[in-house]
Amino acid sequence: MRLSELSELSGVTTATIKYYLREGLLPPGQRVSATQAEYDESHLRRLRLVRALLQVGRLPVATTREVLKYVDDESLGRTIRLGAALWALPHGPEPDEEAPETALARDEVERLLGRLGWTTAQEIGSLSPVHRSVVASLATLIRLGYPCEGDYLVEQAQLMHQVAVRDLDMMETYPSEAEQVEKAVASAVLYEPLLASLRRLAQEEETARRFGL
Amino acid sequence: MRLSELSELSGVTTATIKYYLREGLLPPGQRVSATQAEYDESHLRRLRLVRALLQVGRLPVATTREVLKYVDDESLGRTIRLGAALWALPHGPEPDEEAPETALARDEVERLLGRLGWTTAQEIGSLSPVHRSVVASLATLIRLGYPCEGDYLVEQAQLMHQVAVRDLDMMETYPSEAEQVEKAVASAVLYEPLLASLRRLAQEEETARRFGL
Repeated sequence: MRLSELSELSGVTTATIKYYLREGLLPPGQRVSATQAEYDESHLRRLRLVRALLQVGRLPVATTREVLKYVDDESLGRTIRLGAALWALPHGPEPDEEAPETALARDEVERLLGRLGWTTAQEIGSLSPVHRSVVASLATLIRLGYPCEGDYLVEQAQLMHQVAVRDLDMMETYPSEAEQVEKAVASAVLYEPLLASLRRLAQEEETARRFGL
Repeated sequence: MRLSELSELSGVTTATIKYYLREGLLPPGQRVSATQAEYDESHLRRLRLVRALLQVGRLPVATTREVLKYVDDESLGRTIRLGAALWALPHGPEPDEEAPETALARDEVERLLGRLGWTTAQEIGSLSPVHRSVVASLATLIRLGYPCEGDYLVEQAQLMHQVAVRDLDMMETYPSEAEQVEKAVASAVLYEPLLASLRRLAQEEETARRFGL
């Protein structure tokens, strides 16, 4: 399809598409003449993802380009490719290594991972920014005097695992690995607010059930 | 206890405590002389909550004061008191009533609530800002071309309901209604980032299990 058709189908103006092309967020189309290029379904998908990252995720252009670099890196294994793309997204707070609660939180997370049967930091080193933000969130709870008991954490983590299982089941219905990785990145940015709102809605529902209106 | 002791036990400087008192975020202590006041356990708890709202939730002082007003309003029933305090917190995106996707999303959410057996908007009117942010998140998915199938939404919402059940179970272990409401508000601000990180950690774990490292 031509640029004008890509614009119409995606709802993105041609000026914006040209900007994305210049910034390397959208790969160039197949040149068919000196002034025209052909675009395909993959450009449409990529436009969708770029808008999700920029408009909903509010990522800077440079971060978006880095995320897409991993999304497109076919030399990586699927777990690493997914991991690298997701790690390039903005993530939660970093632990304050000076604070005494950080060490306590790190031990608590390690015990939690052991009880869950998940990979512990001891096994692979705590390189993951996701692991670090779990430690940081827990350290904040400890510092502010809100305890977080082991059993509660185990139960909530198991529920989050079930959420992840459904997310990956849905991801695996996508035909190609490229589409699966795109889907996972979009999901991290777009479904996070949806799940957070659903959780608060569930809280309202359960509160009304327990205590009446 | 005296102001100095309250400062020591809470880890909040006396200057900051005096600022919270002036701003009405902390109720005054019991005056024992012209220059001294006595504080108790409830002040310590309130300081914890104020720090959670200001430092972690990054709420403006005026919003924090509004949240606390509902937390302290004993004339309200428990569901309304909880609801009002939580509704005063910043919440997700507002639906764009001009966009055609908003009407589609609203229908989809109504179907979802019906299938879940939760209170539908038709039953109580869609006054809840939480309900509105579910509609807005779903409208964004539709607009960007990421479909969100009914079954997927039902399953994820049911898991979020289980999360809420555990949160409320924990809340109900707190002795007084005042402490329960404080706990719920703190939970909305502090546990949200923890759950989001746990979900991403679960995704990494499940990805590694399915596709290897």
